[in-house]
Amino acid sequence: MSFTRFDRYVERNAQSFIERLQALCRMPSVAARGTGMRAVAETVEQMMQRAGGGTRLFRLGSGYPIIYAEFGAGSHCFLIYGHYDVQPVGSLTEWTSGPFAAQVIGNKLYARGAANSKGDLVARLAAIEAYQKSFGKLPFCLRYIVEGEDALGSPSLYQFATEHADLLRAHGAIWDDGYIDERGRLVISLGFKGIAFVELRAHGARTDIHSKWGGIVPNPAWRLVHALATLLSPDGKITVDDYMRHVAPLDEEDLRLLASVELDEEGLKREFRIESWARGLSGSELVRELVFGPTCTICAIQTGHTETGPRTALPGTAAARVDFRLVPNLTPELVLRLLREHLDRRGFDDIEISVLARAPVAKSSARSLVARAAVASANEVYGTEPIIYPLDPASGPVGALCGAVEPPTPVVSFGIGYEGSNPHGPDENIRLEDFIQGIKYFGRVIHQLGRLAEEANFQGESKNALNLPRGQAIAAKGARDDDQ
Amino acid sequence: MSFTRFDRYVERNAQSFIERLQALCRMPSVAARGTGMRAVAETVEQMMQRAGGGTRLFRLGSGYPIIYAEFGAGSHCFLIYGHYDVQPVGSLTEWTSGPFAAQVIGNKLYARGAANSKGDLVARLAAIEAYQKSFGKLPFCLRYIVEGEDALGSPSLYQFATEHADLLRAHGAIWDDGYIDERGRLVISLGFKGIAFVELRAHGARTDIHSKWGGIVPNPAWRLVHALATLLSPDGKITVDDYMRHVAPLDEEDLRLLASVELDEEGLKREFRIESWARGLSGSELVRELVFGPTCTICAIQTGHTETGPRTALPGTAAARVDFRLVPNLTPELVLRLLREHLDRRGFDDIEISVLARAPVAKSSARSLVARAAVASANEVYGTEPIIYPLDPASGPVGALCGAVEPPTPVVSFGIGYEGSNPHGPDENIRLEDFIQGIKYFGRVIHQLGRLAEEANFQGESKNALNLPRGQAIAAKGARDDDQ
Repeated sequence: MSFTRFDRYVERNAQSFIERLQALCRMPSVAARGTGMRAVAETVEQMMQRAGGGTRLFRLGSGYPIIYAEFGAGSHCFLIYGHYDVQPVGSLTEWTSGPFAAQVIGNKLYARGAANSKGDLVARLAAIEAYQKSFGKLPFCLRYIVEGEDALGSPSLYQFATEHADLLRAHGAIWDDGYIDERGRLVISLGFKGIAFVELRAHGARTDIHSKWGGIVPNPAWRLVHALATLLSPDGKITVDDYMRHVAPLDEEDLRLLASVELDEEGLKREFRIESWARGLSGSELVRELVFGPTCTICAIQTGHTETGPRTALPGTAAARVDFRLVPNLTPELVLRLLREHLDRRGFDDIEISVLARAPVAKSSARSLVARAAVASANEVYGTEPIIYPLDPASGPVGALCGAVEPPTPVVSFGIGYEGSNPHGPDENIRLEDFIQGIKYFGRVIHQLGRLAEEANFQGESKNALNLPRGQAIAAKGARDDDQ
Repeated sequence: MSFTRFDRYVERNAQSFIERLQALCRMPSVAARGTGMRAVAETVEQMMQRAGGGTRLFRLGSGYPIIYAEFGAGSHCFLIYGHYDVQPVGSLTEWTSGPFAAQVIGNKLYARGAANSKGDLVARLAAIEAYQKSFGKLPFCLRYIVEGEDALGSPSLYQFATEHADLLRAHGAIWDDGYIDERGRLVISLGFKGIAFVELRAHGARTDIHSKWGGIVPNPAWRLVHALATLLSPDGKITVDDYMRHVAPLDEEDLRLLASVELDEEGLKREFRIESWARGLSGSELVRELVFGPTCTICAIQTGHTETGPRTALPGTAAARVDFRLVPNLTPELVLRLLREHLDRRGFDDIEISVLARAPVAKSSARSLVARAAVASANEVYGTEPIIYPLDPASGPVGALCGAVEPPTPVVSFGIGYEGSNPHGPDENIRLEDFIQGIKYFGRVIHQLGRLAEEANFQGESKNALNLPRGQAIAAKGARDDDQ
């Protein structure tokens, strides 16, 4: 299929697409502040409708709305996940232009959210629009889910995934985490690590007391330190009983993809200002550990007071937040069980464990439809083969969506940002060219997905295994369902 | 010597003394807020002058003034330490009457600072006044030092002790930490544990980074946990190399005094809401551990963020505050050296140690002049023998004053509060009777000190060993020296 018509449409409307993105970026949607969230959600819903989607708005408890839209129809179904909320802006003085001015300076658009991830949202909707104008209806069912709590840990989305798993059945999912590397190559991830983020808490006296009692009143800070010290060896190996036994060995595909992953060791060391990597790792061992290593990271410990002024008190409680990043075949449920058993076995049954966040591993085979479509579409637009991460070391709420059904939905991820996008800092920006390329690329991904779905049908592979409740989700175009 | 005249003076002026205390309590002097501190300092200085003291006001850097006053003259010199600042008031709704209303309700005076320790300050000055009115000039040199940063960790006082050790030479020191127990007995401490309060800090990346890097970027939180875990065994024994070797064995006097220390184990367990004491301690072992055990207490750990909302980040830095309470013969300097060597020996030479506070052990023999005077004066006023703690498990800035000279000045401590005084909580209060008894008691302590000093001179014991620069300190009565 020739994309001449499609590309011409994109180019003709490029300015309009950019202006749509500017308009969306000018609506502040900092989830942590909470103002204007509803207005942005409604705008996104209208954008979905204008692109031809049937939509529903879900509101779970007091959370920000989740927009669910469906486009096209067919034997296959694919899922896109995105978010309309943005990170806090931080110090305004560090910004060259206002974070919500959405100014174009040179060939870049500066705005909070431009890269993470309103740019992807607008680009993908533009691609859907251009596809429909050029080729007609999408050749499969596309479910587009956009949440507003990415920066808050996506509580509503997790609840949504549990309560509406029927809306999440799909042959593949696409996220927008990714970027164009410094050599212009598209970086594609074939999945994300899972996560079990827990808080461990120990209790002592009912309140902080004078530390003169330190010798005879149980100290929860010591208790916690001693419990934590059993989870990881001083040389960085996870020592939770039986843990490593569950880590699946890498298969040939993993090893093949891993071999092509590049890591700018020296550049990253300079960026992090560290002298060496943990455990003296380097080269392929370092890459393997980053990509396929399970992690056990203390993210926070809080006990007592560390404000200015020395205050000697024996704390009444102590808490640590520990983040386990999961690789196959570790699941959040397994990790929680192993952790509890490990602590109990050592007499730490008084240490409370509570779950702050969890998401399963979401990993695709390179042979999945989404992976094949993403990889096959890259060269034509970017003029070079993509970089493929067999597993992204990060996790994401997309894991909750993919893991809500069994077997988990394969996921791939790519985006329109670049290495200078600074999505969590000041002067967040995208290059306009990347934005337009992203539209063209996504149009091709749609096409490839349709082609592969057809091929699968021809080979009798799909069998409608998902048993999709197509259409049931959307009562009527634009219908709204505010689950309060 | 008969105290009839002295007691009659105290009784006749009781109402006036109470009103003086009320007036002082009505001047808020919350060091943490910092308002009105100078005014209170000046009021205290005037009270000292009215009681016949020659005074100097020391101001170190931007700290709150230290009042130094001298009374009387003689071969011997004694030191009193107090403070005019008070603790924060906390939640006003928890107070029955305003914290600075200084209301008398029934037989109690309610005010922030009434027990800790404006009541002692006013009582001691009243005793000095009554003594002079009844018997004439004090029979020794009395140096009264009052600071305004007790609640802030006494930074100015520590500097003062270093810079003005000449003003601190004395045959004994008296502090006001202490109380009347539930059976009306005066609790006297013959000293205080020392303290080395340190912060241990580990560094990782230059800032918090995404925790997906947890497997390959050094994590200062883990580093700190592993370092801490080497300092104390899971069963609560200090495992810093060579540490316990320096703890002096208890002598006969220690053991004798220890045998009479009572601890309301069940009542305290209820108060702290704990099920059992550390390491299953109880009875005399528990008391010995409390009084003479060296401690190593984690008072605080801070790394990463524990605010609401799960945030997975690999922290860039991690800090713990550890409080070592010292017993003979542990000194802050020794502990710091042992700690450094211990960590270095285990490869933790990257862990920074900084000192937040330090004070040497300040311990008196029961045969010291101050101990004998305090013990001998109790029965006549309180109608029962005092409870004597051979060592108070707390430490205090008085340790810095006593330790500024060599050999350290013996110290005793007692006060006018009672078990219901709640000096750090709401409704801080004293019983007026305790206040008046405190004045009478202190008059007798002055007398006993004079008598013992004379006796020592007669026996040739004192030899003016202190070589006191009497009078040099005070250029003129009321002269002021603001060291900026």
